[in-house]
Amino acid sequence: MIIMKKDATEQQIQHAVDEVARAGLRTDVSRGQYLTIIGLIGDETRVDFTHLAALPGVKEARMIQAPYKLINREYSSAYGETGTRIVKVGDVQFGAPEPVFIAGPCAVENRDDLFRIAEQCKAAGAHILRGGVFKPRSSVHSFQGLGSAGHDEAIEALTWLREAGRTFGMPVVTEVRGEAQVDLVAEFVDIIQIGARNMYDQDLLQTAARKKLPVMFKRHFGASVEEFLCFAEYIAAEGNKDIILCERGIVPMGKGKNYTRYMLDLAAVPVVQKETFLPIIVDPSHATGRRDLIRSMSLASIAAGAAGLMIEVHDRPEDARCDASQMIQPSELKEIIAAARQLRTIALK
Amino acid sequence: MIIMKKDATEQQIQHAVDEVARAGLRTDVSRGQYLTIIGLIGDETRVDFTHLAALPGVKEARMIQAPYKLINREYSSAYGETGTRIVKVGDVQFGAPEPVFIAGPCAVENRDDLFRIAEQCKAAGAHILRGGVFKPRSSVHSFQGLGSAGHDEAIEALTWLREAGRTFGMPVVTEVRGEAQVDLVAEFVDIIQIGARNMYDQDLLQTAARKKLPVMFKRHFGASVEEFLCFAEYIAAEGNKDIILCERGIVPMGKGKNYTRYMLDLAAVPVVQKETFLPIIVDPSHATGRRDLIRSMSLASIAAGAAGLMIEVHDRPEDARCDASQMIQPSELKEIIAAARQLRTIALK
Amino acid sequence: MIIMKKDATEQQIQHAVDEVARAGLRTDVSRGQYLTIIGLIGDETRVDFTHLAALPGVKEARMIQAPYKLINREYSSAYGETGTRIVKVGDVQFGAPEPVFIAGPCAVENRDDLFRIAEQCKAAGAHILRGGVFKPRSSVHSFQGLGSAGHDEAIEALTWLREAGRTFGMPVVTEVRGEAQVDLVAEFVDIIQIGARNMYDQDLLQTAARKKLPVMFKRHFGASVEEFLCFAEYIAAEGNKDIILCERGIVPMGKGKNYTRYMLDLAAVPVVQKETFLPIIVDPSHATGRRDLIRSMSLASIAAGAAGLMIEVHDRPEDARCDASQMIQPSELKEIIAAARQLRTIALK
Amino acid sequence: MIIMKKDATEQQIQHAVDEVARAGLRTDVSRGQYLTIIGLIGDETRVDFTHLAALPGVKEARMIQAPYKLINREYSSAYGETGTRIVKVGDVQFGAPEPVFIAGPCAVENRDDLFRIAEQCKAAGAHILRGGVFKPRSSVHSFQGLGSAGHDEAIEALTWLREAGRTFGMPVVTEVRGEAQVDLVAEFVDIIQIGARNMYDQDLLQTAARKKLPVMFKRHFGASVEEFLCFAEYIAAEGNKDIILCERGIVPMGKGKNYTRYMLDLAAVPVVQKETFLPIIVDPSHATGRRDLIRSMSLASIAAGAAGLMIEVHDRPEDARCDASQMIQPSELKEIIAAARQLRTIALK
Repeated sequence: MIIMKKDATEQQIQHAVDEVARAGLRTDVSRGQYLTIIGLIGDETRVDFTHLAALPGVKEARMIQAPYKLINREYSSAYGETGTRIVKVGDVQFGAPEPVFIAGPCAVENRDDLFRIAEQCKAAGAHILRGGVFKPRSSVHSFQGLGSAGHDEAIEALTWLREAGRTFGMPVVTEVRGEAQVDLVAEFVDIIQIGARNMYDQDLLQTAARKKLPVMFKRHFGASVEEFLCFAEYIAAEGNKDIILCERGIVPMGKGKNYTRYMLDLAAVPVVQKETFLPIIVDPSHATGRRDLIRSMSLASIAAGAAGLMIEVHDRPEDARCDASQMIQPSELKEIIAAARQLRTIALK
Repeated sequence: MIIMKKDATEQQIQHAVDEVARAGLRTDVSRGQYLTIIGLIGDETRVDFTHLAALPGVKEARMIQAPYKLINREYSSAYGETGTRIVKVGDVQFGAPEPVFIAGPCAVENRDDLFRIAEQCKAAGAHILRGGVFKPRSSVHSFQGLGSAGHDEAIEALTWLREAGRTFGMPVVTEVRGEAQVDLVAEFVDIIQIGARNMYDQDLLQTAARKKLPVMFKRHFGASVEEFLCFAEYIAAEGNKDIILCERGIVPMGKGKNYTRYMLDLAAVPVVQKETFLPIIVDPSHATGRRDLIRSMSLASIAAGAAGLMIEVHDRPEDARCDASQMIQPSELKEIIAAARQLRTIALK
Repeated sequence: MIIMKKDATEQQIQHAVDEVARAGLRTDVSRGQYLTIIGLIGDETRVDFTHLAALPGVKEARMIQAPYKLINREYSSAYGETGTRIVKVGDVQFGAPEPVFIAGPCAVENRDDLFRIAEQCKAAGAHILRGGVFKPRSSVHSFQGLGSAGHDEAIEALTWLREAGRTFGMPVVTEVRGEAQVDLVAEFVDIIQIGARNMYDQDLLQTAARKKLPVMFKRHFGASVEEFLCFAEYIAAEGNKDIILCERGIVPMGKGKNYTRYMLDLAAVPVVQKETFLPIIVDPSHATGRRDLIRSMSLASIAAGAAGLMIEVHDRPEDARCDASQMIQPSELKEIIAAARQLRTIALK
Repeated sequence: MIIMKKDATEQQIQHAVDEVARAGLRTDVSRGQYLTIIGLIGDETRVDFTHLAALPGVKEARMIQAPYKLINREYSSAYGETGTRIVKVGDVQFGAPEPVFIAGPCAVENRDDLFRIAEQCKAAGAHILRGGVFKPRSSVHSFQGLGSAGHDEAIEALTWLREAGRTFGMPVVTEVRGEAQVDLVAEFVDIIQIGARNMYDQDLLQTAARKKLPVMFKRHFGASVEEFLCFAEYIAAEGNKDIILCERGIVPMGKGKNYTRYMLDLAAVPVVQKETFLPIIVDPSHATGRRDLIRSMSLASIAAGAAGLMIEVHDRPEDARCDASQMIQPSELKEIIAAARQLRTIALK
């Protein structure tokens, strides 16, 4: 990384960028309020940092040891006192003191259900509306979301989602499961979600990142924290640092039952905050797969320092075509949001 | 299990016990304030529950499906409104609304350090003093605790621990690592600890359980929740249900770093509470191995519903012979206890 | 599944297909030498199997309980005595008594290296040539394969691969990492590889399957065997059952070192053979990441019943831009192939 | 470690030992046919190796970096050409070219069954007889072995085991599950087994090691290879290096089924051989829990380089009180032994 002096000129910045390019690497220029920092993309061992440090306008130039460089905590000085990049989605701010709540049904199934649930989520205090259109499923024999039923169905479902969001004043987020869906989805949503199963899919990550929309990026259930951050780096390397990380549990281990679908790794929340400047939220719904554990794991996530929660909500879960056992009622959501807000103020001290 | 009628006589209870014995099983009789419940120890498939249900004084008789029967949540009616058995250690109550804090150094190394740390832990709000005398270690080449240096050293260290506890008004807990240590340790402590590495050691569990002292029982880092509870059942089958369960993290998984020693499975906290009537606490020190994560994981544990915490504390960690990197200062303990108490009231609602 | 009588007419088959379609499901018709079997794609609980069983020409109709139905071992009767589908690639037969050896460098880097290595692999006894053009990498800062350098570079590398294969009489295989690469790659190769990281990427699987080329499908390092087969089912549901499964190790677990990159799950080899009719091979190179373990794990794989091996080979590994530590010399490949052939005859008895 | 010169005198050896003792460490002196090597037990960083290297009669003195030092491969020069220590049990040699087969029922249940099975195992080619007397079980409600029924029953079962061994010319092995059983078991057996669940039980390891009988030491199902070897070091540190390591599978991981009880880590076989001089065998019975996988995993183990196998055998498994689903018939054992012997000659080349 190269940190420019406060009074560095545009010409000096360009000069530094050109010098890096001469070594065969690309650059990523962060112009913060206080500092301009140049990140290097490529094999840093090919760069002479002593030379770079001596360029006019350069305050400091050095290699970042961690494999994730562009999202590294070493850049936190660019992000003010807390060192966390605030990812803004309309009026909503991920990474700010106020926790963010994303809520909605597992899948968009029809207009009426979606609007009714969206209204109740808003009333419960949620900020952002979620709803799956392209559903990743373990079985080809299961419902894959309306998006997989055909192009028209995909547009219809995405239109409902956008309208429900606008009607009730909530930005919307949905998942892209494959590269071919990115262009379409990007027209309708405020945040593009990359699901856990696609975390390693670097081509999808790059395609989504180029849309310049905020990306919600979920950790794969077989990935270490280090790998998680290495793949977030793929998004940042496209010049998009509006990344909201999401912990959602890793695969269970051991002989016998753990009684949850996945195992929530909450230590990943403070660890990620020490390793990067990106905000991280938690999805307790997929992590546990159990309605009766959502409240306790939501509170635990906020207490661990999560910047928000993504929770599946449905007022008639028995009618839902997927994840019926993990969706909570809007009334429970309201209670969780109230408790989480109280906890957040204690946790942030 | 057999639930007796409220007005069942001792003779009727004994009759039921005798009938179970005729089928070749042992029994465990719980005389609660309201109900008497008879647990069966052995192969329940050999018992005719229809016959038992028809005995005089018997209200209900049925098989418990889970492999842990004596500690099963189905007995919760014996434990009042919350359904949680309160494990009492002096004035301290595990499972009550007030969270319990156990603190102290990793190992008892000398009298001065122990007394100084104990005093500071008490001042910070801790209820119980911990200190290892027999240390389980991965390397035979490392310090194994004073207890392994010889019989005299073991007695000396245990004496310091007991005295420090008495001096500052704290019950004490230490680990037994092998069967040969149980008699000695039981003379000095208020709680016997079975460490994670010994969770599967059924002979040690039975030997320790027979001392009739409360047992702090830690989950092995390779065990599922189901296995954890199956082995707690070994303690209960000796007639000792004063068991305090402790989650302390499972082995990390994945390629690359997770940046913590183990992976804390906080969903185990509410899960265990739904499966048994036993209280469960969390040990964030061994789970993370990092001082800078203790606060956030302590708060997350309490928010998840833990009945208490066990935290390693040292005012001069650089002098310690083990776990130097994970012990926090007494001042930080104080701050954590204050925040945890606030959180507990919100989490319990 | 519906098994038709031996003398069932085309009209009767079509009638059965139509009846399934009326319930809203798709079908997959397997016309074996002896039997015609109709697989159902979709939610089987919506089908009345009693009704189907009574249709003219139908011998048997029933639900398959496993979540993978089209590749289920229950269809093995369609595949002769061994019950294994032989996947043919030119003269090479996966699933036949003779084991198949795939060899070549990690990545296609330049024409000379590729041709020289290909020639030596052929001489050592390899049947199929491998070489990565689109490399999945954990770090965006690492070499991603020539395919990621641009469209022209991709075509050039693919052309070399095809030519090297033709020159030395070996079909070729390379990996597609994203949907956008499928059309291009399919023009050049004999087998399309889906790498471990993309196992869960159902859109990529479907896109690749439609090319009607054999698909080599690797197990994700965080996937259970059940999940592995569930995703292979996505390929089969596109009407492509020329699937070669590949075990390549799951993520290591535990505190401390295992001294290998992944953990090879060789029991998966016989298990998969009992669950499906598909052939399965093993990749010891990525599983271990260590040149000095390739021989022993190759022999173990064949002894476990693997139908073949995929091994990375390079005569000058120190020059390679990836996986230098795991590639073996052609001379060692030759020795492994000879020993593996001997073992296979013993293992198959 | 300190390597003495070939012509070093006893006095010089003693001098070196004394110098190590002055630094507060213990020593372990290996007098091989060619070389005398002194291992250090304790914290090596407290030793001045430059000083030791300059002592009379000392050829070389240096620190071993791995945490397991006494069993380290660096001592292999003391063990002849193969570098593997041959552990002798009567005429049987673990680590020699001929593979060793241990067979017998899961548990010793009665005299007749044991003798009948023992005779058949011997006829099938087995070298050593196994049979559990103290059974580690997940449930306190299950059969725990005759040893747990009382002292007399333990003696009776152990007597049968010893007699069956003598009658059919096979050394015998059984497990000690707790420290209190070691004295008794050691009177009756030729090899003491430490089961997987007790791997971390350092006090039991030390107690067993002191009996100076060969110890069969199984890897815990949650342990890394590094941890496995660290705990084997506890046995060696008692002066007992007649250790036979045993791989028996680690806990399964992932969402969904793997169709085996544990996951056999066969790469551990060659890895252990590169890290230590100890022989390693494999137990496919507990690893898979499935009779129909024993043959393929036995062959794979031998192909991976295992020095032997431990297989559960019963001619009437339906009558057995534990592990009925994994015990094979004597006839299958015979076939496996024949195939394994052929494989071993190929694998060893």
